[in-house]
Amino acid sequence: MLYQSYDMKDPHQAAVPADNVNNGLYGQDILSVKQFNRQLLTYIMGVADEMRALVKRFGKANLLDGKILANLFYEPSTRTSSSFQAAMLRLGGRVIAINEVRYSSVTKGESLPDTVRTLESYCDVIVIRHPEVGSAAIAAKAARKPVINAGDGPGEHPTQALLDLYTIADELKRLDGLKVAMLGDLKYGRTVHSLTRLLSLYDTEFYFVSPEILRMPEEILQELRQSGHTYHEFEDVHDVISKVDVLYVTRVQRERFDDPDEYERVKDYYVIDPEVMSKAKQDMILMHPLPRVYEIDMRVDDDPRAAYFRQMENGMYIRMALLAAVLGKA
Amino acid sequence: MLYQSYDMKDPHQAAVPADNVNNGLYGQDILSVKQFNRQLLTYIMGVADEMRALVKRFGKANLLDGKILANLFYEPSTRTSSSFQAAMLRLGGRVIAINEVRYSSVTKGESLPDTVRTLESYCDVIVIRHPEVGSAAIAAKAARKPVINAGDGPGEHPTQALLDLYTIADELKRLDGLKVAMLGDLKYGRTVHSLTRLLSLYDTEFYFVSPEILRMPEEILQELRQSGHTYHEFEDVHDVISKVDVLYVTRVQRERFDDPDEYERVKDYYVIDPEVMSKAKQDMILMHPLPRVYEIDMRVDDDPRAAYFRQMENGMYIRMALLAAVLGKA
Amino acid sequence: MLYQSYDMKDPHQAAVPADNVNNGLYGQDILSVKQFNRQLLTYIMGVADEMRALVKRFGKANLLDGKILANLFYEPSTRTSSSFQAAMLRLGGRVIAINEVRYSSVTKGESLPDTVRTLESYCDVIVIRHPEVGSAAIAAKAARKPVINAGDGPGEHPTQALLDLYTIADELKRLDGLKVAMLGDLKYGRTVHSLTRLLSLYDTEFYFVSPEILRMPEEILQELRQSGHTYHEFEDVHDVISKVDVLYVTRVQRERFDDPDEYERVKDYYVIDPEVMSKAKQDMILMHPLPRVYEIDMRVDDDPRAAYFRQMENGMYIRMALLAAVLGKA
Repeated sequence: MLYQSYDMKDPHQAAVPADNVNNGLYGQDILSVKQFNRQLLTYIMGVADEMRALVKRFGKANLLDGKILANLFYEPSTRTSSSFQAAMLRLGGRVIAINEVRYSSVTKGESLPDTVRTLESYCDVIVIRHPEVGSAAIAAKAARKPVINAGDGPGEHPTQALLDLYTIADELKRLDGLKVAMLGDLKYGRTVHSLTRLLSLYDTEFYFVSPEILRMPEEILQELRQSGHTYHEFEDVHDVISKVDVLYVTRVQRERFDDPDEYERVKDYYVIDPEVMSKAKQDMILMHPLPRVYEIDMRVDDDPRAAYFRQMENGMYIRMALLAAVLGKA
Repeated sequence: MLYQSYDMKDPHQAAVPADNVNNGLYGQDILSVKQFNRQLLTYIMGVADEMRALVKRFGKANLLDGKILANLFYEPSTRTSSSFQAAMLRLGGRVIAINEVRYSSVTKGESLPDTVRTLESYCDVIVIRHPEVGSAAIAAKAARKPVINAGDGPGEHPTQALLDLYTIADELKRLDGLKVAMLGDLKYGRTVHSLTRLLSLYDTEFYFVSPEILRMPEEILQELRQSGHTYHEFEDVHDVISKVDVLYVTRVQRERFDDPDEYERVKDYYVIDPEVMSKAKQDMILMHPLPRVYEIDMRVDDDPRAAYFRQMENGMYIRMALLAAVLGKA
Repeated sequence: MLYQSYDMKDPHQAAVPADNVNNGLYGQDILSVKQFNRQLLTYIMGVADEMRALVKRFGKANLLDGKILANLFYEPSTRTSSSFQAAMLRLGGRVIAINEVRYSSVTKGESLPDTVRTLESYCDVIVIRHPEVGSAAIAAKAARKPVINAGDGPGEHPTQALLDLYTIADELKRLDGLKVAMLGDLKYGRTVHSLTRLLSLYDTEFYFVSPEILRMPEEILQELRQSGHTYHEFEDVHDVISKVDVLYVTRVQRERFDDPDEYERVKDYYVIDPEVMSKAKQDMILMHPLPRVYEIDMRVDDDPRAAYFRQMENGMYIRMALLAAVLGKA
């Protein structure tokens, strides 16, 4: 079922924002994908390429020898925390991992700005994950040293979007002229919102596939219309699988549905198994931010188009690039 | 309201203990402020100055390359734990952070001496924080390698007192001839007790400001009389603010009061805001061990006299100095 | 009380498996003691000797500079976790310690293979401790990089058995011709099962001392008979203490007994105090995997035959040897 389609006459008119030349991330915070333009993205992805080459060849670089990262996680996230830690360690830096914030100063009533000002007296850069929207910005305002947002609840998770974009570029060797499908919970999915915003800097045709109740928010669709992008909204992945260059999967949670029958009716539209993949293009890629549960069948893992574990690895290179950049060593 | 004043005729008679020349901290434990005399303090603060210079210039020193710190925290303390970790990492050493002791061998019934003897078979130095008085001494007795007390409940927290003293010296460029006020919970405050003992090695005039029920313990006042120090006890910070060179703030907790009316009556005597600071000397400093809640108004943070975040940073330099000293690399 | 004795006519017939020459641990997983033959054990213990020499002389080696260990602990174990961390750090490598798995991706429903495949995209080697038998093998199957089993519930804990064997070799300077007693809970004791299997590669005479209800499983006794080893089963340590070269102690837990009277009757048979040690050979050694509670009296700690803290330290050297070997740097 096609919910809606917004078609540009000439997709090449897709409005790409004028580049505001500023590759100088040195000393900057990384809070939102809105900070990035095409030039800056090209630059960061180029640095990530170099990081990959260094890691493959030497295991590490020594760019951040003597630097300390405070990895401040107010909610657990093994994956993101480990990725930032590995990025810092592979740059020759050191890490103070603060994972038990629930038991720490914070529970003694301390404000986030005080925690951040204390940590920056020991460290050179702060990565923060926090369940509340805007917390990373509050931390960044308090700190004189760079702060990187590793997810502020339903807010942003910019390094995830950057690694997603980098994976598309790395796998398909271009970012313009692609048909990209996003699947699953598009209403609450922070990940797909941010990636859509980054992809809207390129000539992308979007396919949004979700249950009716979990469609992409109107705010984002409006942004796409304003920037002159073509998009289509579908209910069932089978309607788009043969057309797209990228299929980005997220989970549809049963809890989102008031009506269990409705969940039962649609749930198979959002599960990728070998049968679905058999209809996909040979040179497309299948992505997922992980962790996945049932929404991608494990039998798909060995399909060369399954890019999600390579996507994880790319997260480390992008985070290496960002850490090096904000500390002036990229 | 002045509770009491003990005045020396000639403050210059303030009895300073004869220095017991022993700068050799190599292989020693750091358990109590009572281990320190003026000469040793001068030495450690000098090393801390050097550590600061190294960090500012190079980010780190390589003095402890190949050394491992076991950071053994039986209760959470993000601030102290991070400070010790940063100190070790900036010295080129490595850290094993053991924060989840509640789930560890200890909960299997293991004794503290066994835990310490196990850890020292892997590590070169142990930092321990434990909720029970005397635990650090028990650990030190079991270990052949140096043990540093990072707080043993209501007992001691010597590195806090050392960083406090170092901050006064660093900010005011002297330790003799100062008027130092301590504010808040002086009865239960481990921090103010230890700092008072260190300052009593110098020609200090003390101003103790607290609710009646939270006055400085008689044991400490007696020590001050014996060492010939002048002190004054007040109820309200407004009575002392214009006179002092140092105002050291700690929190007055509502829970300490049986009578809520009494808490309401006095609570504003222990809150430092811009109005209070307007009456203070221009070259005084405002200190706090952090975390703070309401007892220092955040609008004071930008006052150049607000030294509490610099105090945090000094904690790292003092801990670098101590780690280097006990490992024979200072 | 002697339960049973199985005597070989000629102990020198003890069947030692033919060595399958394969010292190439490079890229291999370490999952079970069954992977090891005498030649491989000799090799690993030789590397451990070199690691000890390096640590004693330099504090560390730089063999694993640029390598990252993911230390993935699904259940807490300060001792084993710290030992692996120290081993990696002393080899010049770095560690990402993942201790809070209960709050992590896993609790979001992620499968162990996905967690492992994610971690290996950041790291070079994975150490895993998990409460379920077979979990380490599942992890190893998913991973392309080496996985080391640090205990999979009632399954195996091969590095413990290797450090136990290494301690016997290091202390007594031989592995053939020894009388080895194992004491305590021999039914459920993963440690004694694995060590028995390793010792059965040598000409060992076994003394198993346990309550009737906690005797060594028939499966292991059968293996010993098949490999031609002599063993004796006793109820009381007093019956064996004067004969043995090694006494390996584990705890007898009260909870194992349905009948509290039976526990009271036998419990003193499994407590080693100075009086028991007074009957032991002068050149024997007393071992324990730790943590210990009451089963070895602390007054025994200063007895030179008490080898359990040296045993801990040996754990670090054995783990250094294994990490270096699987990463191709031994």
